[in-house]
Amino acid sequence: MQPADHSSRDDRPKPALVGLDWGTSSLRAHLFGSDGAVIETRTRPWGIRHLPEGGFDAAFTAVVGDWLADVPTLPVVACGMVGSRQGWREVPYARCPIDARSLAAALVPCDTGHGVLRIVPGAMVPGDRATRPERLPDVMRGEETQICGALARAPDLAAASLIVLPGTHSKWCRVRDGRLTAFTTFMTGELFAVLRDHSLLGAPGTRATAETGAHEHRDPTAAAFLRGVKIARDAGAEGIAGRLFSTRTLYLAGDLAAEDVTDHLSGLLIGDEIRSALADQETSCGRTPVLVGDPALCARYRAAFHEYGLEDPRILGDTAPTGLWTIATSLAIERQGAQLL
Amino acid sequence: MQPADHSSRDDRPKPALVGLDWGTSSLRAHLFGSDGAVIETRTRPWGIRHLPEGGFDAAFTAVVGDWLADVPTLPVVACGMVGSRQGWREVPYARCPIDARSLAAALVPCDTGHGVLRIVPGAMVPGDRATRPERLPDVMRGEETQICGALARAPDLAAASLIVLPGTHSKWCRVRDGRLTAFTTFMTGELFAVLRDHSLLGAPGTRATAETGAHEHRDPTAAAFLRGVKIARDAGAEGIAGRLFSTRTLYLAGDLAAEDVTDHLSGLLIGDEIRSALADQETSCGRTPVLVGDPALCARYRAAFHEYGLEDPRILGDTAPTGLWTIATSLAIERQGAQLL
Repeated sequence: MQPADHSSRDDRPKPALVGLDWGTSSLRAHLFGSDGAVIETRTRPWGIRHLPEGGFDAAFTAVVGDWLADVPTLPVVACGMVGSRQGWREVPYARCPIDARSLAAALVPCDTGHGVLRIVPGAMVPGDRATRPERLPDVMRGEETQICGALARAPDLAAASLIVLPGTHSKWCRVRDGRLTAFTTFMTGELFAVLRDHSLLGAPGTRATAETGAHEHRDPTAAAFLRGVKIARDAGAEGIAGRLFSTRTLYLAGDLAAEDVTDHLSGLLIGDEIRSALADQETSCGRTPVLVGDPALCARYRAAFHEYGLEDPRILGDTAPTGLWTIATSLAIERQGAQLL
Repeated sequence: MQPADHSSRDDRPKPALVGLDWGTSSLRAHLFGSDGAVIETRTRPWGIRHLPEGGFDAAFTAVVGDWLADVPTLPVVACGMVGSRQGWREVPYARCPIDARSLAAALVPCDTGHGVLRIVPGAMVPGDRATRPERLPDVMRGEETQICGALARAPDLAAASLIVLPGTHSKWCRVRDGRLTAFTTFMTGELFAVLRDHSLLGAPGTRATAETGAHEHRDPTAAAFLRGVKIARDAGAEGIAGRLFSTRTLYLAGDLAAEDVTDHLSGLLIGDEIRSALADQETSCGRTPVLVGDPALCARYRAAFHEYGLEDPRILGDTAPTGLWTIATSLAIERQGAQLL
């Protein structure tokens, strides 16, 4: 019997899958071993709107070309905006309810010139103009994979849960019987960025600091942030429409320091997202949300939840890699044991 | 007795006042006759953020230099952002309640090199962090002059009224006993512009049409606009946070044409402003608002009011010139008969 030598090449799990999380602003490539663990992750700033010269093909080759050269038979799956109209190949949305298995069955192949890339469809809830005009359509690309990862990592969420993925477009996702049944999008992160960078509100903060980090990179318990959350909470049914300008007036009145302006704005917007979601029984299901995504941004939402008197939420972090693995293997497991795709 | 000959120069009212409405994006100069009527108006794109070479001085000379050369003793008053921190001279806000007389008493002189320019102070409602933290400060510059003009033109509004000035920063103003007592700012126009120009939402509309007019220049009864208003209205206490993304999803679903995207967005935002204002008894006073400002934008608000079941509002148009005249003459009338300032 061979001795266990972890330095020996043969002992390492063999590469079994490449998973791409390819969004608007960045590209993350994960190399998975046959045990499902991530062997290596590479992050590049090549989101679909920031591609290098040569476009999708050049980005793909540069980030995973050597992995595929080593093991030409490696299957490759991708999720995110790469499957959108502006992506490499447009992939139709899968209609909710969905789960890893139904997404796997709907993977769409895209020829890369280095073998086939299989793209995970985004998810949609259809509108219903005829019989329920108040029901608006909603869509996601990438978050469906994070939901699959969250359910794989925390199986107790499968029966019935509310999973919130904060971000540029925050998603409040309802899960029942192991499937994503419906969700609502809040454009909180995008609102924050456009107001900070292009409105009157952002100017003092931009002048106060050369640092232009997004709201996730600030102290989640900053007093100015929590004050913004409380103003949004106390607005009640009025919402923040008539309070957004406080970001300017409190600064002019000397009651908000220039360096705290962006925290105040972030608090108002995240606070309004939570207030609005909790006001809708259908969105919030009366459950304490579980948070999935960037840990720093999740910490910010956790601090805001606290101001709403919610229980301390669980934070699962980034579940996209687990989701990619789960989707890629779910059909294979069913059909062919452990063999991938 | 001299015959009435209206072509004779002597018959025209003599120039008596120059009034400047000097905002962020434009400069309007009015030459008033001794009867208070406007003899001539000049509009230039020289808002305080878009000054010509030579800055305030050059803009001032170019737009009113000849009027002052003809009648060097002409008094000049100005309202708007010209009195802000980024303006020609910063003028402290006047604290509500205010009226034309108190504003006139607080005019601040600014030496132009061509005589004195008197700047109308903006108005403020102070916050009250100590005893009423939910009461946020609010400010305006320019609208206080429009309010004075509205009350001069429609004296029946003086006793008690709600005057709405739609715009980049919409103002909902409460008037009682002839004075502006309080107001609330909604950043509706600025939100519209930054979302149209810098967010994902605006792209289809921008591609659909080379015309980049602001929302005031579109059909006020366009179906897409009214649908946006209704979605905001029916959102109730949730507000539009979870519905803003419908601007994207309805388009993706083929249920909103690219050329209607900006109307939909405008309807959502104007609808949310109205919903929020009506939800607050203190903001709306339970009264039907009177509209003051750009007639096309007022028409849009009127159409939106209709969706909220409000009575058809009166529309007063641009009352800034009347306001400038009223403020400039109010103190003079009191002190020196008809002599100005």
